[in-house]
Amino acid sequence: MKAEIIAVGSELLLGQINNTNARYISSGLAEIGIDVHFQTVVGDNPGRLGEVIRIAESRADLLIFTGGLGPTKDDLTKETIAHHAGRRLVHDEAALRSIEGWFKRMGRPMTENNRKQALVLDGAVVLENRHGMAPGMLAASGGVHYLLMPGPPKEMEPMFTEQAKPLLAQIAGEDGRIVSRVLRFYGIGEAELEERLMDLLDNQTNPTLAPLASDGEVTIRMTAKTESREEAVVLLDRAETEIRKLAGEYIYGHDDETLVSKAASLLIENRLTISAAESLTAGLFMAELAEQPGISAALAGGVVTYTAEAKTAQLGIPAEFLKEHGVVSEETAAAMASSVLAKFSTDVGVGLTGAAGPDPHDGEPGGTVWVAIARRGGSMETRKLLLSGMRNTNRIRAVKSALHILIRMIG
Amino acid sequence: MKAEIIAVGSELLLGQINNTNARYISSGLAEIGIDVHFQTVVGDNPGRLGEVIRIAESRADLLIFTGGLGPTKDDLTKETIAHHAGRRLVHDEAALRSIEGWFKRMGRPMTENNRKQALVLDGAVVLENRHGMAPGMLAASGGVHYLLMPGPPKEMEPMFTEQAKPLLAQIAGEDGRIVSRVLRFYGIGEAELEERLMDLLDNQTNPTLAPLASDGEVTIRMTAKTESREEAVVLLDRAETEIRKLAGEYIYGHDDETLVSKAASLLIENRLTISAAESLTAGLFMAELAEQPGISAALAGGVVTYTAEAKTAQLGIPAEFLKEHGVVSEETAAAMASSVLAKFSTDVGVGLTGAAGPDPHDGEPGGTVWVAIARRGGSMETRKLLLSGMRNTNRIRAVKSALHILIRMIG
Repeated sequence: MKAEIIAVGSELLLGQINNTNARYISSGLAEIGIDVHFQTVVGDNPGRLGEVIRIAESRADLLIFTGGLGPTKDDLTKETIAHHAGRRLVHDEAALRSIEGWFKRMGRPMTENNRKQALVLDGAVVLENRHGMAPGMLAASGGVHYLLMPGPPKEMEPMFTEQAKPLLAQIAGEDGRIVSRVLRFYGIGEAELEERLMDLLDNQTNPTLAPLASDGEVTIRMTAKTESREEAVVLLDRAETEIRKLAGEYIYGHDDETLVSKAASLLIENRLTISAAESLTAGLFMAELAEQPGISAALAGGVVTYTAEAKTAQLGIPAEFLKEHGVVSEETAAAMASSVLAKFSTDVGVGLTGAAGPDPHDGEPGGTVWVAIARRGGSMETRKLLLSGMRNTNRIRAVKSALHILIRMIG
Repeated sequence: MKAEIIAVGSELLLGQINNTNARYISSGLAEIGIDVHFQTVVGDNPGRLGEVIRIAESRADLLIFTGGLGPTKDDLTKETIAHHAGRRLVHDEAALRSIEGWFKRMGRPMTENNRKQALVLDGAVVLENRHGMAPGMLAASGGVHYLLMPGPPKEMEPMFTEQAKPLLAQIAGEDGRIVSRVLRFYGIGEAELEERLMDLLDNQTNPTLAPLASDGEVTIRMTAKTESREEAVVLLDRAETEIRKLAGEYIYGHDDETLVSKAASLLIENRLTISAAESLTAGLFMAELAEQPGISAALAGGVVTYTAEAKTAQLGIPAEFLKEHGVVSEETAAAMASSVLAKFSTDVGVGLTGAAGPDPHDGEPGGTVWVAIARRGGSMETRKLLLSGMRNTNRIRAVKSALHILIRMIG
């Protein structure tokens, strides 16, 4: 079964909102083994929408529409499909009652155009809208399935997941189970990873392997299609073992794990407390960590020392020390880490200093960063980064690198 | 000129990421008066991409592609277009040197597949990639313009805005000048602002007025279309005056200004130094400020005191004081602000404390936040926020609110 997702709405073409519905539906369809071949956005224009439907019918057998089911005269998705497929529109009694009930509850008069929202394609399975007024519907005609859902994500998302997806899974039939797993890499570029895995990427068909790079990280999504979940897991395990042989040292997690969620859960599990002294990242390391649930057990706090004076006054690093080694140096990063650990009496102390760029800082070229992580008892790990991004990209990379060292240290 | 935006990438069809590029480009094209009629997403599949190009050429005269310019063999956008339009691909020397330079700086070997990124359509205007490797390009063939840009938003967005958009504005021609201006509001909701401006929004046609809400802020984009830039500016000034009469007290800036950029430039202009003591925001206020160019003249640093103990040990706020007033209180926020100001001897000190939510903290319901800003000499401003978002939304709102107070205080 091949699907095309069609969003109807001029606000999308004007760039006022992102088409998050397409991502949501695509991700749900991937889980039930339905391939999405195209996503299309078209405005509130019956001529162009009709043309989009004609093209979609020629290349897909499941057309999923979002938007254009509302009460205004711009909302014309079902009218256009009805006209196109030669189907009548009829009032759905349950939907009509639910719309009338809403206006009664709100104590507002129901205007005539709201009755239009209860119109559905004759013969369609009606999907209840539990978070709004316009119902959804699923209809079939000439071997093509048409699923129509409202545009607002708050209405569409639960309707899709609770009602439409189970129906589609049935229609798509059980030609095998789809199970996927994501491997997450840090410290290796996409091109280099693909070179290492070239044979696998070229020859592996079940599971399929799809690499994706973003923000200095690379992921590989493995998707297996088998008769049972157990068989799929065996195939995924086997592929993961192969990948680990070739690039295992760069894998830090699975699925929805991120560097920061992994670091936070390791800190919490191991009952370790942490503090940070941040210069170029100016609090970003701590702020990222603070987004993680349960982190208050681990994160004590820390110091942002943006200037050399602050490093001396707040962390007790002598001005002569900074002059001798430089503000951007392994020694200064290490002194910051030890000092903040002692000051906050935590188990782990992080020091981050560098030249965010593009200009040099204290004699070091832009993009030079030193990360140090100290542990109670005196052990210390440091890493030098040479980054080439913009200031803020370099800051984010510096934070990720600190999280990565931390994961390896306490993992 | 009618545009179609075509995103190439199977990760979009698998629902792994949102197609934010389509929104970004659509919004930019709206500013220069180019209508987007369709947005399309297609996978890394040359057959289907070729078909999408054929359809797009039949209904648009500007085809904008994002994605598929990378080094891997899945990246085939330019190869497919070259094949389709009968154009050769040639190495762009500047791009090649820049890619080689990147590998040299990183001290990594350059793999052969990376050379492919420097290939461009013969005769195209090459767009430099200032944040990555693959250059963009703009080519014309048979009355159709083809704009190719990389997929990662960090690379695409600046390339589009700085290089492609000015070229497209020229090509689209001067059928009247389009000048737009954005007014930025803080402290008023979209619905309330629309009520205040109802008459204007309903009747104003040149400039057009388009309100948009996001992240607790509202903007109104005014777009005027006239014979000359001067006339457009007159119309924009007149509309702004009308809007200021109705809701001027909520306007804090124009165009690309943000709360943080405005706050940073006011600090720098007024030669004021700043420090912050952050609890629920855990460094986010300082990290946001640190993203602004030139901020090292103003930002000294600060302290993150995530726990009550840290507030006592690092800021010298007695445990009894915290017990008496509560950790989430006006008094504690003010004490944090004064203490960090003294500790870092800055002109301004910011204190942020609160219950990020959803759980209560120290007896205060989730979403309760106190912001305090102290100035050298003793003056102090405080604000209580009752927020209803998720933890991280509440953190961002708390930071924005602090920036807003700061702007009113020193502006």
